[in-house]
Amino acid sequence: MLILKIELASNYGFCFGVKRAIKMAENAKDASTIGPLIHNNEEINRLKINFNVKTLNGINELQDEKKVIIRTHGIPKNDLEKLNASKIDVIDATCPFVTKPQQICEKMSQDGYDIVIFGDENHPEVKGVKSYANGNVFVILEEEELENIKLSQKVAVVSQTTRKVEKFMQIVNYLISRVKEVRVFNTICNATFENQEAVKNLSKKADVMIVIGGKNSSNTKQLYLIAKNFCEDSYLIESENEINSEWFEGKQLCGVSAGASTPDWIIQKVINKIEKI
Amino acid sequence: MLILKIELASNYGFCFGVKRAIKMAENAKDASTIGPLIHNNEEINRLKINFNVKTLNGINELQDEKKVIIRTHGIPKNDLEKLNASKIDVIDATCPFVTKPQQICEKMSQDGYDIVIFGDENHPEVKGVKSYANGNVFVILEEEELENIKLSQKVAVVSQTTRKVEKFMQIVNYLISRVKEVRVFNTICNATFENQEAVKNLSKKADVMIVIGGKNSSNTKQLYLIAKNFCEDSYLIESENEINSEWFEGKQLCGVSAGASTPDWIIQKVINKIEKI
Repeated sequence: MLILKIELASNYGFCFGVKRAIKMAENAKDASTIGPLIHNNEEINRLKINFNVKTLNGINELQDEKKVIIRTHGIPKNDLEKLNASKIDVIDATCPFVTKPQQICEKMSQDGYDIVIFGDENHPEVKGVKSYANGNVFVILEEEELENIKLSQKVAVVSQTTRKVEKFMQIVNYLISRVKEVRVFNTICNATFENQEAVKNLSKKADVMIVIGGKNSSNTKQLYLIAKNFCEDSYLIESENEINSEWFEGKQLCGVSAGASTPDWIIQKVINKIEKI
Repeated sequence: MLILKIELASNYGFCFGVKRAIKMAENAKDASTIGPLIHNNEEINRLKINFNVKTLNGINELQDEKKVIIRTHGIPKNDLEKLNASKIDVIDATCPFVTKPQQICEKMSQDGYDIVIFGDENHPEVKGVKSYANGNVFVILEEEELENIKLSQKVAVVSQTTRKVEKFMQIVNYLISRVKEVRVFNTICNATFENQEAVKNLSKKADVMIVIGGKNSSNTKQLYLIAKNFCEDSYLIESENEINSEWFEGKQLCGVSAGASTPDWIIQKVINKIEKI
């Protein structure tokens, strides 16, 4: 009988911004977050049970809150301004790597640049970043989406922090061929990049890959797509309950990685479950 | 017997900047240029014979000149300042598409950006552009040349006007992966780009390609390399005297293109000679 070996990616899981936000939420206690603090339901439940941190969907749900926490992905500029103008105590857990593209967007807009954001327009981070532009702003996932748009000759481009750098380069290349000045801000965060590199290397040799993270987490989805590209038998799960023992039949090496919002305790539960199989 | 058909590229020859410079030289008469006005010896001879336009190697060769013409490629900033401070009448025939990267280089340097110039450090245009930087400036042809250089997190990048855009993109991609902000100025001129596209399309179908232009002309060399890439039997010549009738034996379609500094009258002589074969 084959013995299944489990190997963790050399980089995985919690990034700086998520660790920081959880620490802030734990310290705040009894606070409410505007939108889920991070993209991981299990961890949000833990914060609710242990620290009475509630999750609101938006500022319209505010009632008599004394403390609010801004989620790691940030929130739209107007919402933040309203909160800051109120009497509510605002704890800003926006990841500093997300604050950066917000600031760039605002400054470049002021300086007369058209803004291109490489990202998913429905993702809260991107909605937040976009809200800081006060001129032309285009959110795209593919360069082709710019084809019928008349761009100014000065374009600034930023990326959602969790995107793949190769695609970002393609978009920049497209812009270079069309526009006189392209001001490129590589706002893809290093943790994302390192987790991506590590999952790539591991999935090249693994027989089966397990990527753990929220299904609405952009960086987790990217990790899963990279794994899938190199290892056909790749699975994206949120918790150990989704594991199917058939996945491991006849396999020798099981690679494990996790998104930037996946806590170690969930990763450990998954590994324990696989080991039992 | 096969009949050889000759086809000109859809774009070729004199660009805007060269036409402008020749007109200025013809109007100036009896003037001296600092360095060859354009990279074409035959045309420079014509200007000398018909308009008494002399060519000096540098400002150190100035004697009792009353009028000097700045070559299309521009000259180093210090030299231009010396000339402007003298009593000599300065006619600036620097191509406006070259003035642009000079200005960018100066401004970006002042704003604290490291400068990367994609180009040949021995080419007069690049020497001129480089001279406008007053901070860190790196001239490269390959991205690998940047590997051991410690760059600031703010880099501005320009290109020699006559380079290939694909390679420029590669260099930008390399910078994006290393540096937080890359400010990309696509200073490759359209005429160069159009001539390159045209020679590519023509050389795909031609049996033999003749590219006419100065052997020290950067844009002519690029055209030749593109032609050679698609048509093995490609030749770079400066005049009809270099033509070898053996090149055309058994060929059906001869493509012809010419660099941005090649006058029509030379192109015509070449075509006449090929037709006689």
